[in-house]
Amino acid sequence: MSSLPKSINLIEVGPREGFQFEGIGDPGKISTDSKVKLVDALSETGIRTIQVISFVHPKAVPQVADAEEVAKRFKRKPGVKYTAVYLNDRGLERVWNTGKFDFDAHIYLTASEAFSKRNIKRTLEEEVSAQRKIIEIHKEKKIPITWGGVMAAFGCNLEGDIALNKIIDRMKVVFELGQEYDLNLEKFQLADTMGWANPEQIKRTIEKIKNIWPDLGFGLHLHDTRGTGLANVYAALEMGVTEFDSAIAGLGGCPFAGHRAAAGNVCTEDIVFMCEEMGINTGVDLDKLIECAQLAEDIVGHSLPGKVMKGGNLNKFRTYLF
Amino acid sequence: MSSLPKSINLIEVGPREGFQFEGIGDPGKISTDSKVKLVDALSETGIRTIQVISFVHPKAVPQVADAEEVAKRFKRKPGVKYTAVYLNDRGLERVWNTGKFDFDAHIYLTASEAFSKRNIKRTLEEEVSAQRKIIEIHKEKKIPITWGGVMAAFGCNLEGDIALNKIIDRMKVVFELGQEYDLNLEKFQLADTMGWANPEQIKRTIEKIKNIWPDLGFGLHLHDTRGTGLANVYAALEMGVTEFDSAIAGLGGCPFAGHRAAAGNVCTEDIVFMCEEMGINTGVDLDKLIECAQLAEDIVGHSLPGKVMKGGNLNKFRTYLF
Repeated sequence: MSSLPKSINLIEVGPREGFQFEGIGDPGKISTDSKVKLVDALSETGIRTIQVISFVHPKAVPQVADAEEVAKRFKRKPGVKYTAVYLNDRGLERVWNTGKFDFDAHIYLTASEAFSKRNIKRTLEEEVSAQRKIIEIHKEKKIPITWGGVMAAFGCNLEGDIALNKIIDRMKVVFELGQEYDLNLEKFQLADTMGWANPEQIKRTIEKIKNIWPDLGFGLHLHDTRGTGLANVYAALEMGVTEFDSAIAGLGGCPFAGHRAAAGNVCTEDIVFMCEEMGINTGVDLDKLIECAQLAEDIVGHSLPGKVMKGGNLNKFRTYLF
Repeated sequence: MSSLPKSINLIEVGPREGFQFEGIGDPGKISTDSKVKLVDALSETGIRTIQVISFVHPKAVPQVADAEEVAKRFKRKPGVKYTAVYLNDRGLERVWNTGKFDFDAHIYLTASEAFSKRNIKRTLEEEVSAQRKIIEIHKEKKIPITWGGVMAAFGCNLEGDIALNKIIDRMKVVFELGQEYDLNLEKFQLADTMGWANPEQIKRTIEKIKNIWPDLGFGLHLHDTRGTGLANVYAALEMGVTEFDSAIAGLGGCPFAGHRAAAGNVCTEDIVFMCEEMGINTGVDLDKLIECAQLAEDIVGHSLPGKVMKGGNLNKFRTYLF
């Protein structure tokens, strides 16, 4: 049998990535009220980290023009970490000014230059210098940076397959930056931004990285674009990975990846179901999570990909018996 | 790294199980023409076995009242095996009389008696005597029976968790029946009829069975009711399982399991995608399969759960590069 971790930590990205995706072409579709309502409901489930919204320029992403208003209105629950996404110093300044957020700060590069150019309009060199600026403003504000990350790590719709060595090279650049600025990068996240990964690739990648950096903590940001999402999570669990980004009801998708009809992030409640059934503690109440998933469907006004919200928690059938 | 099988065999059950499910409450919803069209399209994909339809009494399952007509009209393609489902001697007689089918005959028991009573209206003892009748009529017609099987093997909405020992006990009854009638049961299928299985349970179950019957071939019939379908397939691949039932576009569901909104069988093209990406040969053309999945959506008139049909074959992005 596999030796799986005893517990995992989920980072809920649905309100940020999911709602951002839903609002493409119709920025007002998800009201500020709805955004706040879902964040507040998720706060009651046992989820320990919630990515609330992005602070990027409303000209680039008009659906997050209300970021400050959302920040003002959601209710912080003690014990829950609330984070926001920002891509530059101006974004960080805006997040900082709300006074509502925790920081899980990271240095992030992209494995695919073609994707990087289209997604954040930067070459690798420009990405590195942007990260320098980000590091400097974190230093000024005394916000520790503990995460490194590589996006589009498992393949790219614009560039094709991404060689494992390319991920390693990008990781080395991240660690060099970290050393230069005396950061303590304890953890690393790889993002399968466009849903290319398969379980064997996940294992191969993590095995190689663990050989080079045996003490590094590890997180994954996975999309279920082609149905392999939970199989990839399972393969990662077999390799000892304990942190996953996920989205309630499977909200989301990548607005820049060119497959708008495709599925979004791996689904939070489906991961919780699978883990709890295998004896892995998630700290999350599945029934409350299913209610949040139904709320997410009500908000977006259409069916979402999550399955356990439709199939139901098995504990309910077990309870009948006692 | 895991040592995965070099190739697998998929048994396409969408036209049988999927269309049967879709027609609940509206038996004429899927026209005979549509049924035939999907079977004929699947015949061109490289799939080696297609379960075409059930021959059960039209009073019990009115949506298969046209079984003989479907049998008459679909076109047999050389190299493809076409099977039908029957539950008793009268059903087998009807299948036989069409002259259009191959036989992958099996003895099948149900792990959950509560489910069995509701599903096929039989107690375990009645199931066993029904299997005797089935065996006898196969003997008369000289149709070999090579498969054993247990349904509801991983859990039951009516009975709750199913102990591993219960599966083993049922398997022993099947093998005793086999010995009594001098059958050569080379293969065994377990069905997760109501979508309870998780990857670790799949591994634990197969490991135990392999310890008892090391030379037994093994197949799984999995439902993706709670999102763990492909993770379960991956876990089974890690244990060397090489035969899977699956349904195009993820058609189906179990009409008797009490969760009509839930997802159906594991999705054929998503399995093919995952396997081919991991270097496991399925013998199936993914692009043709995606066309069949789109045809299935057109026929049922609503979105189906399959993901790679929306996310797309990755080879198309790779081809851009050369």
